[in-house]
Amino acid sequence: MKDRESVAALDRDDPLAPLREQFTLPEGVIYLDGNSLGVAPSAAASRAAQVINDEWAVGLVRSWNTAGWHALPGRLGNKLATLIGAKPNEVVVTDTISSNLFKVLSAALKLIEKRDPSRRVIVSERSNFPSDLYIAQGLIALLDHGYTLRLVDTPEELHAAIGHDTAIAMITHVNYRTGYMHDMAALTRHIHHVGALAVWDLAHSTGAVPVDLTSVDADFAVGCTYKYLNAGPGAPGFVWVAKRHQLHVHQPLSGWWGHEAPFAMNPTFRPAHGIGRFLCGTQPIVSLALVECGLDVFLQTDMQTLRRKSLAMSDLFIELVESRCKEFPLELVTPRDHAQRGSQVSFDHPHGYEVMQALIARGVIGDYREPRILRFGFTPLYLRFVDVWDAVETLRDVLATEAWRAPEYAERSAVT
Amino acid sequence: MKDRESVAALDRDDPLAPLREQFTLPEGVIYLDGNSLGVAPSAAASRAAQVINDEWAVGLVRSWNTAGWHALPGRLGNKLATLIGAKPNEVVVTDTISSNLFKVLSAALKLIEKRDPSRRVIVSERSNFPSDLYIAQGLIALLDHGYTLRLVDTPEELHAAIGHDTAIAMITHVNYRTGYMHDMAALTRHIHHVGALAVWDLAHSTGAVPVDLTSVDADFAVGCTYKYLNAGPGAPGFVWVAKRHQLHVHQPLSGWWGHEAPFAMNPTFRPAHGIGRFLCGTQPIVSLALVECGLDVFLQTDMQTLRRKSLAMSDLFIELVESRCKEFPLELVTPRDHAQRGSQVSFDHPHGYEVMQALIARGVIGDYREPRILRFGFTPLYLRFVDVWDAVETLRDVLATEAWRAPEYAERSAVT
Repeated sequence: MKDRESVAALDRDDPLAPLREQFTLPEGVIYLDGNSLGVAPSAAASRAAQVINDEWAVGLVRSWNTAGWHALPGRLGNKLATLIGAKPNEVVVTDTISSNLFKVLSAALKLIEKRDPSRRVIVSERSNFPSDLYIAQGLIALLDHGYTLRLVDTPEELHAAIGHDTAIAMITHVNYRTGYMHDMAALTRHIHHVGALAVWDLAHSTGAVPVDLTSVDADFAVGCTYKYLNAGPGAPGFVWVAKRHQLHVHQPLSGWWGHEAPFAMNPTFRPAHGIGRFLCGTQPIVSLALVECGLDVFLQTDMQTLRRKSLAMSDLFIELVESRCKEFPLELVTPRDHAQRGSQVSFDHPHGYEVMQALIARGVIGDYREPRILRFGFTPLYLRFVDVWDAVETLRDVLATEAWRAPEYAERSAVT
Repeated sequence: MKDRESVAALDRDDPLAPLREQFTLPEGVIYLDGNSLGVAPSAAASRAAQVINDEWAVGLVRSWNTAGWHALPGRLGNKLATLIGAKPNEVVVTDTISSNLFKVLSAALKLIEKRDPSRRVIVSERSNFPSDLYIAQGLIALLDHGYTLRLVDTPEELHAAIGHDTAIAMITHVNYRTGYMHDMAALTRHIHHVGALAVWDLAHSTGAVPVDLTSVDADFAVGCTYKYLNAGPGAPGFVWVAKRHQLHVHQPLSGWWGHEAPFAMNPTFRPAHGIGRFLCGTQPIVSLALVECGLDVFLQTDMQTLRRKSLAMSDLFIELVESRCKEFPLELVTPRDHAQRGSQVSFDHPHGYEVMQALIARGVIGDYREPRILRFGFTPLYLRFVDVWDAVETLRDVLATEAWRAPEYAERSAVT
């Protein structure tokens, strides 16, 4: 039988424990929402001050060269590459993940159209993050070339749905709601076996679980830096393209940053020789520069060490909720199997929204996702095992006292 | 005959002079490149610290509601609207200007396709900012519907080139190289007369010259905040759509921020009821928040007052260069006619690149644009008339001493 003391012992043995000091964490908060917005690295405020006071205010336009602003998307991409098994010059940090998905889907469709124009289906999951589906819908409507989006209802149906009519399988590696994680290697093998291209969304994977894009032989990937990478609210996303495709693909958001010689001011677009062709316009440098503060903490450890602690935390959370809150109608939605679990745990509760608001009011910040889902993210860089214990005790208290029935917790805010 | 004292008198009479104190300007620099990257408002550093230390680090994910992050694109858009003659809820600040141009061109093409599918030409100028041409080329190649881009060589040819085969005229109001300004009202009338749609790029207009999108009856516009609006390096751009079109247009970068109910997590995209449908993904909040610092200075004056000083400054600059540097091969490229001049002055010089490097080394920061162009931007919010005098004296010195022939000024940097 676990108690708080036995859980605290896990923290004393945790090799990652010292990294917590590199983040600014508010008093009285247990933050289980790093899968939505990561916390602030302690270095972020001073880095922003440096960009604004030195690079911008004093360096002014000269800083495009002298402060290396122009090289930032590629330089940060190379740092990020190590977390997803990518090689140098395969990643750029830029734009939003949705814009990057649009670029990648467009590029992949054109690539496969040349090989086999009869392939007209993009396969995905109905439970995929909606923005991914919206982007595919937007591209299909724009092209008006008879493409369709085929959505399956369960992960098990994916295999059969990806066939010889499939142009692209657009899969999110870890599901935002359930935390279900696909077998990226097996699915990519199948996608290639039927002659389609694999586009992976790594929003809930990057910095959360080990990913090896090179060894699974993926084609395209996009991801996000403001969740597990702690880059700041809405910080730019990233795009990865396998080296073998880079010189054969064209993406339509072909702004001057993607030109092989942007300052030649030539009226005809000629794409950069590599991943640089996936850049578009001038990037928001203050937000972009902060991506580095989060990455620099990751580079002090490795994804295997993080994964061990992540699973230990989510295992502990499941065990404690199921033992200490067993009289309440909580149903585990996240797979128990480690091979199918990301770095979050979701429970279904008939009053999920209200329960989450009551938890947040008590300083345990997870989030709610329609319908009925209580979502808790586990971020080994800055969470302690005692935080897991304390969060479950707060959950038990909210449920046992029925505190969640207070009327203020039923009010829906704009963003939940 | 002017001297420095008579020029200094202009500063004493300048009603805008006190606004200079609201910016951080480096010692020993005369900054004539606000048309490339505006200077830092004094409020920027503390606003960034507030966003990072309070809203992000403490507020965490709650700040999407409590700090109003989610509403920022529209709230800033409404502030910006007053500078371009737009109405409330017609502008959002978001993404890059190039991405926004892609959205707007896509939306406009679909709109006109319904009305008259025979129109297959996008008309623009060969001298347009290249990124605009690249975006049109990217969209045309993606669609593969037989669209073509028709480029004219001089502003005078535009009228004849926009005809009954034209779907869209994509015009940059003020030319980035020459500072030539189009008659927006007359061109829009002509574009509508032949049945086409007017897409305006306001990158070098917003905060630089008076613009009245409503009275000229334009259809779509995009623009930039990091130039005259002093929003910070690469700060998000904006997009404007005339209210009459908003509910009839669809743009393909249809990410969840453009959905009518993003947190309903519905798998089918339904566009927001208004300009919100031109949003795509989660925005870089730190960079986005800084847009407000620049806008708040503009809201203390008006574009007519700014325009008077801008023209007085560019007139003075032309007069001084032509009188004090008359023995050197400088040729004015910018129109003398106020009605055709933006807020910059460009001179052609056979060694423009080297002359500009020598000026920058002496603290007079303008920029160079291929081929041979010395470009000087005039930003009435923070420049003094004596700065104009001193800049011309430095130019005269660089030319008279042939200082620009020093070998270090011939070296090309990555970004010029």
